[in-house]
Amino acid sequence: MSDQLPQGFQAAGIYSGVKRNPQKLDLSLLVSAAPCTAAGVFTKNLVFAAPVKLCRERTPSQSVRAVVVNSGNANACTGTQGDRDAEAMAAKVASAVGCHPRDVLVLSTGVIGELMPMQKILPGIDLAAARLDASPDALLAAARGMMTTDTRPKIAYRSITIDGRAITLCGVAKGAAMIGPNLATMLAVVMTDARLDVDDAHDGLKDAADESFNCISVEGHTSTNDSVLLLANGAAGRPALKNEALAKFQATLVEVCEDLAQSIPADGEGATHMITVEVHGCRTRDDAVQIAKTIADSPLVKTAITGNDPNWGRIVSAAGYAGVPFDASKVCLHLNGSLLYERGQPVPFDGDAVSNSMAADRNVGIVLLLDEGDASARFWTSDLTAEYVRLNADYRT
Amino acid sequence: MSDQLPQGFQAAGIYSGVKRNPQKLDLSLLVSAAPCTAAGVFTKNLVFAAPVKLCRERTPSQSVRAVVVNSGNANACTGTQGDRDAEAMAAKVASAVGCHPRDVLVLSTGVIGELMPMQKILPGIDLAAARLDASPDALLAAARGMMTTDTRPKIAYRSITIDGRAITLCGVAKGAAMIGPNLATMLAVVMTDARLDVDDAHDGLKDAADESFNCISVEGHTSTNDSVLLLANGAAGRPALKNEALAKFQATLVEVCEDLAQSIPADGEGATHMITVEVHGCRTRDDAVQIAKTIADSPLVKTAITGNDPNWGRIVSAAGYAGVPFDASKVCLHLNGSLLYERGQPVPFDGDAVSNSMAADRNVGIVLLLDEGDASARFWTSDLTAEYVRLNADYRT
Repeated sequence: MSDQLPQGFQAAGIYSGVKRNPQKLDLSLLVSAAPCTAAGVFTKNLVFAAPVKLCRERTPSQSVRAVVVNSGNANACTGTQGDRDAEAMAAKVASAVGCHPRDVLVLSTGVIGELMPMQKILPGIDLAAARLDASPDALLAAARGMMTTDTRPKIAYRSITIDGRAITLCGVAKGAAMIGPNLATMLAVVMTDARLDVDDAHDGLKDAADESFNCISVEGHTSTNDSVLLLANGAAGRPALKNEALAKFQATLVEVCEDLAQSIPADGEGATHMITVEVHGCRTRDDAVQIAKTIADSPLVKTAITGNDPNWGRIVSAAGYAGVPFDASKVCLHLNGSLLYERGQPVPFDGDAVSNSMAADRNVGIVLLLDEGDASARFWTSDLTAEYVRLNADYRT
Repeated sequence: MSDQLPQGFQAAGIYSGVKRNPQKLDLSLLVSAAPCTAAGVFTKNLVFAAPVKLCRERTPSQSVRAVVVNSGNANACTGTQGDRDAEAMAAKVASAVGCHPRDVLVLSTGVIGELMPMQKILPGIDLAAARLDASPDALLAAARGMMTTDTRPKIAYRSITIDGRAITLCGVAKGAAMIGPNLATMLAVVMTDARLDVDDAHDGLKDAADESFNCISVEGHTSTNDSVLLLANGAAGRPALKNEALAKFQATLVEVCEDLAQSIPADGEGATHMITVEVHGCRTRDDAVQIAKTIADSPLVKTAITGNDPNWGRIVSAAGYAGVPFDASKVCLHLNGSLLYERGQPVPFDGDAVSNSMAADRNVGIVLLLDEGDASARFWTSDLTAEYVRLNADYRT
């Protein structure tokens, strides 16, 4: 079965003219017939875009009706005019779909430092509103309208039964890429027909983002526009999910967020490998995340994997400078299931066999074991290729 | 005048057989006729090599006579045998030059996880001891014996007069590169004929390293072997430098360390630009260093500079995620002297002219101004090129 919008949601993706290529889509609408409980998590960058400011002010909420997403212009570093433009986008959506302007959220991605071309955006919103539809094709168009240099749309879908009620979660995302003056903005919207109390939506999204979107990087550069939204319209029926029902929903929300998050480095610019870094045996989850992220962000680790080299030294020494204390004489390392390093020293292994396993599979798994405690983390990233550099250096020519 | 060893020092660099190519040098000796006040600063990596352990135990000291440096094998991740090998190298030097084994320091760089080929190293030490000489050629040979994938030897030299005494400082270093299973080890030894008290030597080296070696990165990966040593043999005469005389010496020590430190990213693998990042107007120097380092380590900033693009967005947003709070509406940015961004917003500038200035000069200067306080920092790095990726990914083939 193809990916479906949850009950009560409609979507659209259209071409408004912001991107140069009219074969692409650049404006998406996601609309719920009923008011949604809505939560958001946003970039921690001190330099953040106007739509991030708008969404921060409007979430958490119990009355969100719509999200508008545009690609091609990020409305970042645009001063007070940028704030006015983001508000005008929300107001235009509100009049097109019939709701209060403050019940509309705005996401933008693309060039920074240029004012939004409102003369294209505002008619685009009207066009998108006229095309709103609950079909899988409309969902796909909305996912495509968010893309910048992503090579494919990113959709995650789960249908589950909780207390006899069929509940659907569907998320769309963009990531991957930062050609030109753009940044590696990550945007995601997860829609569900579950009914959630606003505090549960907020806490649940924050926890799910910590295990997913906060555990990926392409090159460690946090954008001005990163945003993840959760919209729950309750169309699957009352009452709001609590206790075991809420826990079951939460587990599925984490799955949807992980699916979307992993699809971002998997589509990383010029990437030839998708790298999963697992770190076990830490005192705290924060320690484990810090070590996993340091390994994942090391250009030496990334390039070794590009070259299909099981280079334990780069991995172990990256862990060593992560800023987390551990007993280096207890460290063990597996790569693609082969033990390379045990209790602080390299062990003999078949280098060619491990290298061949890396060359044969786009997915590479690194597992680092410490002996400090019981906490673990997983982190996903892509490798670093000459093609990445070409895309990010030569975009002017 | 060519670079000179300080009074009372001799040097040698020879081929011991550790490297495959006999046209290269791979073992160096630096020997003082008189006991030296010696200090060291070392990698903060939890995974550190046997020679780092040895030098940490033996510094600060008032009796160091010699430093042996080998390239081709880093003696890292080699367990207790590695410790014994480092000690055996020191003992061999001691017997060859006539001093106590604990008065010899050891530095190593090269492959990690392999035991030192002592059957080559020990005769190599004898050969080097037989070639010890105070000539500029011997100094150059010692600098060459430290190199791994460095494309050129790195020597810095200053001759100053303090209180009527001629004092020489001369440093040698290696950096740059991490082909194969190697790491980007940075080694440096600064020799002087000044007389220093041991606490002044220790504090002075630490401060100088903070302003130089701790303000460079090629790709942000801290190695298992990074070490900087200062040896002061007092041959320029008594008494030990104090007060203004010490301050004048310290300023020159900083210059020598900066010269050596800058030469490392300037010789970065595949680099086409040497990038200087200055950050002003911070509350503390640590804040300024953290922001400068975050900008310097951003692959998006590095690749933009590779492509000669004055991409203010990547630079400003890197500052924004450095983890240091600041008022983003006060930020100004200059690149190669042109104002690109003022008080939180981009300003019109001649993009082609700035780009041409980047293309025309290997050196690129970024100056970021905040409005939080009076503290500043400078940081040096290289750009990120497809050639870097090729060197670091394809070394197996």
